[in-house]
Amino acid sequence: MNDKNLKIMVVKIGGTEGVDFSRICSNAARLITEDKKLILVHGGSAEANQLGVDLNIPPRFITSPSGHTSRYTDQKTMEVFIMAVNGKVNSRLVSQLQEKGVNAFGLSGMDGRLIQATRKEAIQSVENGKRRIIRDDFSGKIDTVQADLLHTLLAAEMLPVIAPIAIGKAGEPLNVDADRAAAEVAAAMKADTLILLTAVPGLMKSFPDERTLIKKVDRKDITSLQEYAQGRMKNKVLGAQEALEKGVSNVLIADGSVENPIDHALAGNCTWIC
Amino acid sequence: MNDKNLKIMVVKIGGTEGVDFSRICSNAARLITEDKKLILVHGGSAEANQLGVDLNIPPRFITSPSGHTSRYTDQKTMEVFIMAVNGKVNSRLVSQLQEKGVNAFGLSGMDGRLIQATRKEAIQSVENGKRRIIRDDFSGKIDTVQADLLHTLLAAEMLPVIAPIAIGKAGEPLNVDADRAAAEVAAAMKADTLILLTAVPGLMKSFPDERTLIKKVDRKDITSLQEYAQGRMKNKVLGAQEALEKGVSNVLIADGSVENPIDHALAGNCTWIC
Repeated sequence: MNDKNLKIMVVKIGGTEGVDFSRICSNAARLITEDKKLILVHGGSAEANQLGVDLNIPPRFITSPSGHTSRYTDQKTMEVFIMAVNGKVNSRLVSQLQEKGVNAFGLSGMDGRLIQATRKEAIQSVENGKRRIIRDDFSGKIDTVQADLLHTLLAAEMLPVIAPIAIGKAGEPLNVDADRAAAEVAAAMKADTLILLTAVPGLMKSFPDERTLIKKVDRKDITSLQEYAQGRMKNKVLGAQEALEKGVSNVLIADGSVENPIDHALAGNCTWIC
Repeated sequence: MNDKNLKIMVVKIGGTEGVDFSRICSNAARLITEDKKLILVHGGSAEANQLGVDLNIPPRFITSPSGHTSRYTDQKTMEVFIMAVNGKVNSRLVSQLQEKGVNAFGLSGMDGRLIQATRKEAIQSVENGKRRIIRDDFSGKIDTVQADLLHTLLAAEMLPVIAPIAIGKAGEPLNVDADRAAAEVAAAMKADTLILLTAVPGLMKSFPDERTLIKKVDRKDITSLQEYAQGRMKNKVLGAQEALEKGVSNVLIADGSVENPIDHALAGNCTWIC
């Protein structure tokens, strides 16, 4: 890890409603003028759900036996997901950043095999209390992130903006959880800090009571956080854990709806795990 | 122009029905194993039209006073266009190429400001014989192509796959004609050859009689070709002319539906302008 690497910050922009792209992009633009090295990773679940509804391919979800929820991505849903996430959300972020003078570069994990994953060939799902095995799902577990490609973009003073689609062994697009993709990117880039921006101020002991926000967590206590995590927050805690285990120093789960959300998080208004 | 540059070939893959992505990708994959340097530029009109219909934002077209037809791209249509072209067509090509072992890298002209254009702020349109001025259209005229970015990808042994979306002065996405985008890419890369693959064998004196295919054209006679060009073929002839004027040695208008379409064109089965 050298001095240059230490400055890298990976910011994951949640795809849920309430996360304010414009504020995040403005904040990112200012940080870049201050020579910070940023990489953005985004989700797109709200857009993917809406596009699915509009195209009469409504979203479906899988609940694992341990209670994790993920998108059921068969071939048709994958097409919708790519259009929404890569075509709409990624392009919108790139455009907003370019408007603000940042030379953003949008890419997905398929491009140049940036994010390689292994397809989950059989997924256990619980429906109405019954277990079943799903075999036509195109989601994957990330194996590697090509850090060289991102270093090349950063060296050319570009801001990489990454859509959470990985590539499988057979060249097929795979849906990967965006929080965990951000964690893997942060780890591969030896980033100092990973910020997961979402629509709430962080992890709360008693959701949605914001007075119960868990502010500071020692990394050795992270497993205990899972008991407070609900829904998609579980993936954030998992992502945080992965990033920390792989060498990232700080993981912040923070509010993406406020003014200057990145500064706001770095000022300690978040769940800060280190 | 050095030896390396001379080998660059730009292939534009038409977005109309009949153009066979799988055959083109297979042919491209073999050429790359033979050390040819390729760049792909694609359209996506059929997909954009279909998605527009599915989303109840049907496509509309503008006819200029001189008879050129182009897509009417207001803000909503632009979103549909980006989803179809960048999200669907580009990702599909990247996936098909990766399946065949090619390290494809999809990007649009917005990424890293690859293709910069100036928005056409007022467009003359003829409807039912009457002229009107359209001011809410997001299409542009290409100013520059960042050749460095493409050289970087080629040097990393990646195959650039380019979606025809440019970036305007204010960071806004702009619809640009894919044939002319391919011509500008070929010119900026000092490509030796530009191949425009479409659903017909080339330009015909008496369309659709394939026996009237115009096989060989001297570049000084290119203006005379316009009289035979109908519909979107007019853009191909314009693109060919631009490419030749800017230093590209050969422009081939050829059939993208046959087996090994690139080899087939290079064997002379096309309209070859040089």
